[in-house]
Amino acid sequence: MNRVFSGMRPTGKLHIGHLAGALTNWTRLQDDYDCYYGIVDWHALMSDYADTSRLGENCREVLLDWLGSGIDPERSSIFIQSHVVEHAELALALGMITPLGWLERCPTYKEQILNLQNKDLGTYAFLGYPVLMAADILLYRSEKVPVGEDQSAHLEITREIARRFNYFYGPIFPEPETLLTPTPKVPGTDGRKMSKSYGNSINISDELPEIWQKMRTMKTDPARERRSDPGDPDKCPVWDLHRVFNPDGGEREELASGCRSAAIGCIDCKKRLFSHVERYLAPIQERRRHYEGRPELLDEVLHHGAEKARKVARETMAAVREALGLLR
Amino acid sequence: MNRVFSGMRPTGKLHIGHLAGALTNWTRLQDDYDCYYGIVDWHALMSDYADTSRLGENCREVLLDWLGSGIDPERSSIFIQSHVVEHAELALALGMITPLGWLERCPTYKEQILNLQNKDLGTYAFLGYPVLMAADILLYRSEKVPVGEDQSAHLEITREIARRFNYFYGPIFPEPETLLTPTPKVPGTDGRKMSKSYGNSINISDELPEIWQKMRTMKTDPARERRSDPGDPDKCPVWDLHRVFNPDGGEREELASGCRSAAIGCIDCKKRLFSHVERYLAPIQERRRHYEGRPELLDEVLHHGAEKARKVARETMAAVREALGLLR
Repeated sequence: MNRVFSGMRPTGKLHIGHLAGALTNWTRLQDDYDCYYGIVDWHALMSDYADTSRLGENCREVLLDWLGSGIDPERSSIFIQSHVVEHAELALALGMITPLGWLERCPTYKEQILNLQNKDLGTYAFLGYPVLMAADILLYRSEKVPVGEDQSAHLEITREIARRFNYFYGPIFPEPETLLTPTPKVPGTDGRKMSKSYGNSINISDELPEIWQKMRTMKTDPARERRSDPGDPDKCPVWDLHRVFNPDGGEREELASGCRSAAIGCIDCKKRLFSHVERYLAPIQERRRHYEGRPELLDEVLHHGAEKARKVARETMAAVREALGLLR
Repeated sequence: MNRVFSGMRPTGKLHIGHLAGALTNWTRLQDDYDCYYGIVDWHALMSDYADTSRLGENCREVLLDWLGSGIDPERSSIFIQSHVVEHAELALALGMITPLGWLERCPTYKEQILNLQNKDLGTYAFLGYPVLMAADILLYRSEKVPVGEDQSAHLEITREIARRFNYFYGPIFPEPETLLTPTPKVPGTDGRKMSKSYGNSINISDELPEIWQKMRTMKTDPARERRSDPGDPDKCPVWDLHRVFNPDGGEREELASGCRSAAIGCIDCKKRLFSHVERYLAPIQERRRHYEGRPELLDEVLHHGAEKARKVARETMAAVREALGLLR
């Protein structure tokens, strides 16, 4: 079975945008691939090195959200990146042959430096972000990597690094291909893209009353000021969420025409959305709670996941060491 | 007992300049310190990534030269850097807090880029040379580092990295101090500094007839063209070697005045030097031969050394992980 690696930075609780954008897809991949899912804590440290007080807790939250979403520790290897030391080792090896220019010109590097101007990201590790990411992927000799469109530049560098390594030392790594995953539009409560940093998220682990509270006050079509004004679903973030979380096509049509004719109000529409999100999240939150009260079970998942990951990682590193000519 | 780390890049057989400049001192340190001596193969890869065919063999040669010189595997931990994976791991961690500017402005970095223009050193790993070097030293929480004068800039960066890490995460690392070692002038056969890359070396493992051959044709005071011309020892590279390898002060005085008055010729002077070097190298070459024919013994030395190094490395990394807030 082909191997797939993907990871997430542990920056806190995940929201329903992560669910629709990545996790639903990750759970599906488990049917067809040998999946390695890493909580990439070294990557989180790169941008948040100045305050690491929540790092461990954030890892635990991500793990709970993953398990809740249906990432299955029996089928996939779920682990913390820093528990598999070979990630650091392969990153060092790949750095040997990675031209500085590739990193300096990386579009996401420049973008992040601009976006996060309140943080000092002019560090050695941050410049090497794509090298560590390449190590994450190549360590499992993954043939496919599920990526959102915004990450395709990173994967291009991974492919280039693999190619250059193979050129010097022989065919060790496959050049991983993108498994472009559908990334539906999931706006937050203020209508902008859902993002923890915007404070507009509906989290996977939010209590239902809290979710309703967030939805109730969520922005809608700004032109529909009064209940009696007709609305335009295409300008309404609540409608975008219906498209993702409401599987009932008939109901969706009814809501859209009701909005356009002002037959129904926004609160009615939001109540319908809430009931679908409630249904969508019910099994996820139940699974999450199952794990939440059992820290020893979480430790076991991570221990087992790291063991499985290490097995592959060690095989790869043995091949890398031999190719590099390192003394046994 | 305070710990000391020092390392050498495995670039081939060592010469008597290494012996006089570092190894003699390293053997002495064994009396007073808990010594960790690493053959730093990752560092060798940084500048020689394009052809690694001799890397393993070079490691073996360095090991033999060390053992010959009296580095004692029972007292010191002798190991290959890449066998202790924590070097790579700590380097990754230290990179998080190392400003790029420190590396770009590092004088030895600029110098090397200029010196080795036939190699493409514009790689990510090479820029991070001082970070890996800091990891090498800090991994053993060494309080003292024996360095030649040309390496003091590197140690300054190590101290700054340690200080910055401690500032963010608490007092994990001592700021290592230089143990400035006497570095006598050891010219090669052409009068320039003895260096493998100049092809002017007398190697520790050279057969005695080969050493004599090299000495016989070694440059002397260029003004002394004929046997009957008086010479000036202060302008003679052979004299520099007498100062290092000839312990007999009376004889040295006799030779110096004999040179100045043309009472003795250069060949006579070289014969005397040769006999001292012969005596100096005899026990070293004997020990070296003892190990040379026993590859299983070498493997055991490295295995044992890596085990001892790993023990300390793991303790340090446990402290580093906790300080960083990584999940256990």
